Amino acid sequence: MSDTGVTVKKSEDLSEWYTQVVLKSRMADYAPVKGCMIFRELSYALWERIQEIFNKRIKSTGHRNVYFPMFIPESFLKKEAEHFEGFVPEVAWVTVGGDTPLEERLAIRPTSETIMYAAFSKWIRSWRDLPLKLNQWCSVVRWETKATRLFLRTREFLWQEGHTAHATKEEADKEVMEILGFYREVMEDYLAVPVLVGKKTENEKFAGALYTMTLEALMPDGKALQMGTSHNLGQHFSRVFDIKFLDEKEKESLVWQTSWGISTRMIGALVMVHGDDKGLVLPPKVAPVQVVIVPIPYKNADSEAISSKAKEIFQNLQDRGITVVLDDRTEYTPGWKFNEWELKGVPIRIEIGPRDVNQKQVMFARRDTHAKNAVKEEEIVKTTEKMLDEIQICLFSRAKKSLEDGISTVKTYDEFRKFLNEKGGFIEASWCGDSDCEAKVKEETGATIRLISSEKEKPFSKCVHCGREAKEVVYFARSY
Amino acid sequence: MSDTGVTVKKSEDLSEWYTQVVLKSRMADYAPVKGCMIFRELSYALWERIQEIFNKRIKSTGHRNVYFPMFIPESFLKKEAEHFEGFVPEVAWVTVGGDTPLEERLAIRPTSETIMYAAFSKWIRSWRDLPLKLNQWCSVVRWETKATRLFLRTREFLWQEGHTAHATKEEADKEVMEILGFYREVMEDYLAVPVLVGKKTENEKFAGALYTMTLEALMPDGKALQMGTSHNLGQHFSRVFDIKFLDEKEKESLVWQTSWGISTRMIGALVMVHGDDKGLVLPPKVAPVQVVIVPIPYKNADSEAISSKAKEIFQNLQDRGITVVLDDRTEYTPGWKFNEWELKGVPIRIEIGPRDVNQKQVMFARRDTHAKNAVKEEEIVKTTEKMLDEIQICLFSRAKKSLEDGISTVKTYDEFRKFLNEKGGFIEASWCGDSDCEAKVKEETGATIRLISSEKEKPFSKCVHCGREAKEVVYFARSY
Repeated sequence: MSDTGVTVKKSEDLSEWYTQVVLKSRMADYAPVKGCMIFRELSYALWERIQEIFNKRIKSTGHRNVYFPMFIPESFLKKEAEHFEGFVPEVAWVTVGGDTPLEERLAIRPTSETIMYAAFSKWIRSWRDLPLKLNQWCSVVRWETKATRLFLRTREFLWQEGHTAHATKEEADKEVMEILGFYREVMEDYLAVPVLVGKKTENEKFAGALYTMTLEALMPDGKALQMGTSHNLGQHFSRVFDIKFLDEKEKESLVWQTSWGISTRMIGALVMVHGDDKGLVLPPKVAPVQVVIVPIPYKNADSEAISSKAKEIFQNLQDRGITVVLDDRTEYTPGWKFNEWELKGVPIRIEIGPRDVNQKQVMFARRDTHAKNAVKEEEIVKTTEKMLDEIQICLFSRAKKSLEDGISTVKTYDEFRKFLNEKGGFIEASWCGDSDCEAKVKEETGATIRLISSEKEKPFSKCVHCGREAKEVVYFARSY
Repeated sequence: MSDTGVTVKKSEDLSEWYTQVVLKSRMADYAPVKGCMIFRELSYALWERIQEIFNKRIKSTGHRNVYFPMFIPESFLKKEAEHFEGFVPEVAWVTVGGDTPLEERLAIRPTSETIMYAAFSKWIRSWRDLPLKLNQWCSVVRWETKATRLFLRTREFLWQEGHTAHATKEEADKEVMEILGFYREVMEDYLAVPVLVGKKTENEKFAGALYTMTLEALMPDGKALQMGTSHNLGQHFSRVFDIKFLDEKEKESLVWQTSWGISTRMIGALVMVHGDDKGLVLPPKVAPVQVVIVPIPYKNADSEAISSKAKEIFQNLQDRGITVVLDDRTEYTPGWKFNEWELKGVPIRIEIGPRDVNQKQVMFARRDTHAKNAVKEEEIVKTTEKMLDEIQICLFSRAKKSLEDGISTVKTYDEFRKFLNEKGGFIEASWCGDSDCEAKVKEETGATIRLISSEKEKPFSKCVHCGREAKEVVYFARSY
């Protein structure tokens, strides 16, 4: 593999293209432990940006960040049976501390419901203590046996997990939907990755939840990617962890709970959805660097004039709150720099050569469309701001169109199989609501119900698989 | 233990006082796993503030945040012998993933030198790749066998660890000192905790370092607390991990490295140093809430007028960038609220009762001095800003005086023992430079050399222990 530049086309070998882009752009690298990864500066900067955006929303709605230990005693994990069943095959166990075998082995958190709710039980006494709305940013470990892939499936990944407790089911429902709205904003308005939103089926819901809401994106190979989930846990956990409160009339009740999470997996989706044959394409609202300025010195030309003009532009853009880098390194050629910044997905490149200085202009190169055009000096700031907005909108529209084109509506199982195999994507179909029927489709085709539509409530045919009366409109897909 | 209010005096039982303050202010709680803790909203908000302050400094000097896996294969940890010896007694080991015993057991990072430097070896090829300046915020695990204490010594804690690689020793030296300066700013200018700064002895330096610089604070019980360290690692790790670069003349050399860290331990120091019999006292520059407004309704009085005045003040302060809470909860009495906010260390409380509204004034209560005084309405914003500044300065001055009073300068071992046992604190003394001599002092008194003075270069007597020629002025203390 060459050190610079992506050597395969996205359309020809998505998997190899993805790996090359992620490694060569320095988003990430493999770690010595199989299935683990290193989040390098570019992906971590994206993650920090996501943290900033999401923190602002949850803090302004009364959520507070905390940090719980990574170790969960096995006995705690076992308390909610369904939850334990769901997670135990993938738990990494600590069995030795220093030289001493532990009396009880400790799970490294695959998710923190059980350890958090043991504390909730101590902390919640009265209606005055509700709602309790906590969130933590941390890493979690799931000892995957499936093939792993950078960002999309690794044994350790970064996420946030929110955990709340409420007096009523209605409040918990409202919380689930509020967070779902925040998630959608992060994904669509910032990452420019459009999603389908709806409820999971009983088979696919979170282990231990009453119900799960999900956000699902479509990857270029026609597979769905779950981007985030928000669960109403009902009273399943409050019952086993004994989380009770006295209401204003001194009556004791179990709390209603929610939990919700998004992870660094979204960064993988971002790469997949927007990247092109030259590398990453980052949406301006999350790009760690929005603009790069590359001075182009030329023999005999006045390099001093170019340099001072470049600095002036840098300063003007920075003063407007635009994140800009002036790449005036002398050890690399302009051509090398162009490739590098394209690989890293910087939305706008501004070039300044001797001719530009003379003509009081610069060249703008737009990462998403590859368009280049000259811009008069006095128009630089305005053009930059406008172009950043345009790129953001353009990336989302393009991805939105792909998502919409990727949905096939079918009435028969023949059509279902045909579209799934020939085109992939989401298959919109009517479904009887039976878990066994759903399981058979999975067994026969590899597709699962990604979500039950919230928008289309009326089925438009009999169940696509069994032909019985249909209850819901659902979206099937093969998935990551 | 009562649910509200600290029931012991700081001067009478520091240890019990500390535990009560930390638990009752909701800074932290115990976790089900022995020696682990829960960082609740108040301590995590302080940690986020520390992250913000420190990130700003390191990012503006070209450092980048990243995230490396928590798992380190045993073979990696073993590569640098001194380092392995230093950490292996306290490692938590993962030995099972899912149902399968692992082929090689995995350490949960006690610190990340070994896993990071394996990657550095891949990433660094040329002088163009230097300096490489990375940092990560994460948790680390050290399976302590000593008694643990919330924030000060726990089996899992939060920290940042910086890791850099440079072309020359001089650059690495400079990096070590730059970071030391940032640490001192965080501790003294923000946390208002004064520190002594200097070099560690060979016995006390980081396992694998060339030398270690340290910042040490003094706790009210006369014990020193290591607040942060910055290490020049020399070429110890680059040699074993084969981290080489070609310089501009195509000559191959090993890189010079540094690593440095501060942790949530600093939050424990903050509690210890500033807290009083009523609970926490938080320095305004880091306090998650700087001002609380408590309206005091009174029978027959115009509660509407009080409420609207309180909201107006809230808005005015918030508009000035002050973090302010309006505590208008009706389920608690004003007296209860006063106690709660004092316990939580909020620097300023503003009370508004019916008489205040009539007289167009409010009452200010200052957390650090307990002073109360009436302030005219039009002076509220100005007074708040001034008082926040004063509290910050006052807390630091008071702590600085305690630190200075806590240093005893001695010339003989008799004096040494006398001061150490009767007063505690730092013992300033001349020392021969011999590690065995230092070890004997530790064995005989429990005190270690916390640091070698950077300021006082000339010894002022013979070695305080062995009476041989002295080489350096050092500070001994018992420590956490």
